Amino acid sequence: MSGLPEGRAVVYCEGAFGTTNGKTAHGLVRRTRRYEVLSVVDSRHAGRDAGEVLDGGPSGTPVVATLEEAIERARAAGTPATHFVVGLAPDGGRLEARDREVASRALAAGLDVDCGLHDFLSEDPDLVAIAERTGARIRDVRKPPPRSELHFFSGKIDDVDGLKIAVLGTDSAVGKRTTAWLLVEALEAAGLSAEMIGTGQTAWMQGVRYGMIMDSLISDFVSGEIEHAVWLAWTEARPDVLVLEGQGSLMNPAYPGGMELIAAGRPDVLVLQHAPTRKHYDGFPRYPMDPLDVQIRALEAVSKRPVVAVTLNHEGIPDDDVRSTCEAIAREHGRPCVDVLRFGATGLVDAVRPHVRRLPPGRS
Amino acid sequence: MSGLPEGRAVVYCEGAFGTTNGKTAHGLVRRTRRYEVLSVVDSRHAGRDAGEVLDGGPSGTPVVATLEEAIERARAAGTPATHFVVGLAPDGGRLEARDREVASRALAAGLDVDCGLHDFLSEDPDLVAIAERTGARIRDVRKPPPRSELHFFSGKIDDVDGLKIAVLGTDSAVGKRTTAWLLVEALEAAGLSAEMIGTGQTAWMQGVRYGMIMDSLISDFVSGEIEHAVWLAWTEARPDVLVLEGQGSLMNPAYPGGMELIAAGRPDVLVLQHAPTRKHYDGFPRYPMDPLDVQIRALEAVSKRPVVAVTLNHEGIPDDDVRSTCEAIAREHGRPCVDVLRFGATGLVDAVRPHVRRLPPGRS
Repeated sequence: MSGLPEGRAVVYCEGAFGTTNGKTAHGLVRRTRRYEVLSVVDSRHAGRDAGEVLDGGPSGTPVVATLEEAIERARAAGTPATHFVVGLAPDGGRLEARDREVASRALAAGLDVDCGLHDFLSEDPDLVAIAERTGARIRDVRKPPPRSELHFFSGKIDDVDGLKIAVLGTDSAVGKRTTAWLLVEALEAAGLSAEMIGTGQTAWMQGVRYGMIMDSLISDFVSGEIEHAVWLAWTEARPDVLVLEGQGSLMNPAYPGGMELIAAGRPDVLVLQHAPTRKHYDGFPRYPMDPLDVQIRALEAVSKRPVVAVTLNHEGIPDDDVRSTCEAIAREHGRPCVDVLRFGATGLVDAVRPHVRRLPPGRS
Repeated sequence: MSGLPEGRAVVYCEGAFGTTNGKTAHGLVRRTRRYEVLSVVDSRHAGRDAGEVLDGGPSGTPVVATLEEAIERARAAGTPATHFVVGLAPDGGRLEARDREVASRALAAGLDVDCGLHDFLSEDPDLVAIAERTGARIRDVRKPPPRSELHFFSGKIDDVDGLKIAVLGTDSAVGKRTTAWLLVEALEAAGLSAEMIGTGQTAWMQGVRYGMIMDSLISDFVSGEIEHAVWLAWTEARPDVLVLEGQGSLMNPAYPGGMELIAAGRPDVLVLQHAPTRKHYDGFPRYPMDPLDVQIRALEAVSKRPVVAVTLNHEGIPDDDVRSTCEAIAREHGRPCVDVLRFGATGLVDAVRPHVRRLPPGRS
C-alpha cells in the first residue's frame, strides 16, 4: 500500500449523507490519504458543503445531485474523477438496485469502483462486463484475500521494537478510529514517526498503509493477519510508534473485540475510548454497558498491560461540561482522560510518550 | 442435524494413525454419534485394533491396509460402507496427492466423502466429476455456509432458559472437547437432558446436533452463529443443560478464544480445562503459559461469571500423582478440580448441578 493518494474520488451517498447509513462517506469527507475527494453525491443536500451538513463547518467538498454532475464538474475544473467510492453503509450491507445502477454508470464512464460492503460488486456479472469493456477496476474492499496469501500467527511479532499502542473502546461505534488517527497525527507533530495499523474497511479507504479488514477474514487467520500487518509496518517503515485500531469492544455481546488485537498484536499499552452517556451497548438496549472500571479491569487482566489513558467521546455531554467530565473520569479512574476531538491529542501524546523506546532518528 | 448415525464410515489415516497428524481419526475412533466406524485405514498398523494403537485397550475397530480391503471387509460382513472420512489432520491443512487419489477411489466406489481440512475437495474438478458420475457426495466440513445463511447477533440468546456451561481451556489442544462430551454423557446419566454445542470440525464429525465450525467462519458472523446455534438447540430440544465447546484460550497468542463464546453464548458458568505441566502455549515455546490463577481471574473479569470447576489434563503427571494434583489445585484455587478422563465426570456434574434451573420432565 503506497503511492497515496491513488486518485480523485466521487463519494456516492445518495439518500444517506449525514445519517448513520452514510458513515463511510463521513469518514472520507473528514479524512483520507487514499483519495482526493472531489465531491459527495446526495441529491437531498445538493449545493451545500459536505462539512457543513456533517459538522457545521465548511470542508471545501461540495455535495452534488448526481454522478454525472460530479463527473462534469471535476472535468471542468481540470481534475477529472478517477474513482467512484461507495460511501453508503446500509444495514445488512447490501446495495440497492438503484445504487448498483449508479455504480454501473460510473464503470461505464471508466471510473474505478471501490466498495466496502459485504455485497461484492465484483461478483455481479453485469458490472464485471461493463468494467471489462471500459478497463475500469472493481475493488471489493471487504473481500478477503485468498487463503494462500493469508498468514498464521508465527511469533514474529516479537521482532517488533516500536511502541505498540492499541486504541480500544468500551463499545462499538464509539470513535476508536478517529482517536487513532488524531493520535498518529499528534505523534507526528511531536516529531515522532507513527504508523496506523487499520483493522476495518473505513481505515483502508482513509489510506492506512498497513492493516487488514478484520471482520471479513476467516477467523482462523485473524491473529496471523494482525501479527503480519504490525510486523510488516515495523519491517518496512520502522516507526517509533505503531497505533493499532481496535474493533468492537471486549464485553460487547454482538461485536466482541480487542482480544485478538491484544493476543496477536501484543500492544505495550492500551488507550480506551469511552462515551460516558451511553447506557447500553450500541444497538442493543437490553445489554447495559459495563461500567468503565469493570472494563478497564477486564482489559488489564486479559492483556497484562496498562490502560494508560481514557479518551472521551463527548456525545450527549453539554459543551460546557466536557472538560469537567474529563477531569472527573481522570480523578475517579486514576489515569488521564482526554477529549481528542475537542482539545486535540497532545494530552494523549503526553500519556504515551514515556513508553516510547526509540528516539527519532538524528536525536539523542 | 438429525437422523444420526448417518452411515457406516471408513476412516482414512494412512501414515498418521497414532500421531498428532491423526487427531481427527483418533476423535472418531474414541467417540462419534455421526457414523458407525467400520475401520481405520493405515497400512503401518494393519491387523491391529485401533484402540490398542491409540489408548492401549481394544475398541473393536480394526485397522486395515487399504481402502479396498476396508470396503471388501464391510461388504462381507453385510454392513457395506457408506462414507469415507478423511481422518488426517496434516500441518497446513493440505491433502497430499497420494491421499487425494485414495479419496477419488472412494468416490468411484460410490462412498460419500467427508473432509475437515482447509483444502476443499469439492473445489477439485476431477473429484467432482467422479462424484457426479457415481452419485456420491463430497462434504467439506470446514467450508463456511453462504453468507445468506449466516446470522448476525440479535439478542435472541436471552430466550434460552437452559443452563449454559462453557468448557474453556488454559491452552489450545488441551482436551476441552473430550471434557465437554464426558460432561454431556454424565449429565445424561444423572437424568438430565443435555446438548453439546460444537464449535470445531471434529465435534461435527463426532455428531453434535448443533454448532458451527468457528475457525472457518467470516469473523463478522462468529457471534451471531454462536448465538444461533445455542438458541436453535434450546428451541428444538429444550435441554436442561447446554454445553458449549470452547476453542483456543483467552490469552493464547495464536489461538485467542473464549471471548466470543462468552460474549454471544452468554454462559452461566465456566469450566476450565488445564494441563499443569505445560510450560508454554502449545506450539509456541517463547510464550510461557499464564498461570492458572491469572487465567481464572481474566476469564471471570471478562465474563462476570464464575469458573465453577477446573478439569485436569493429566499429561506428564505420573499416574500415582493425578489425584493429589487435583486436590492441590482444588485447595489452591478454591474450586473443585476433576480429572474426568481418569475418574469420570460425576464430580463435575456435582459442581454444575446447583446451577441447573429446570428440573427433568416428570420430576419435581
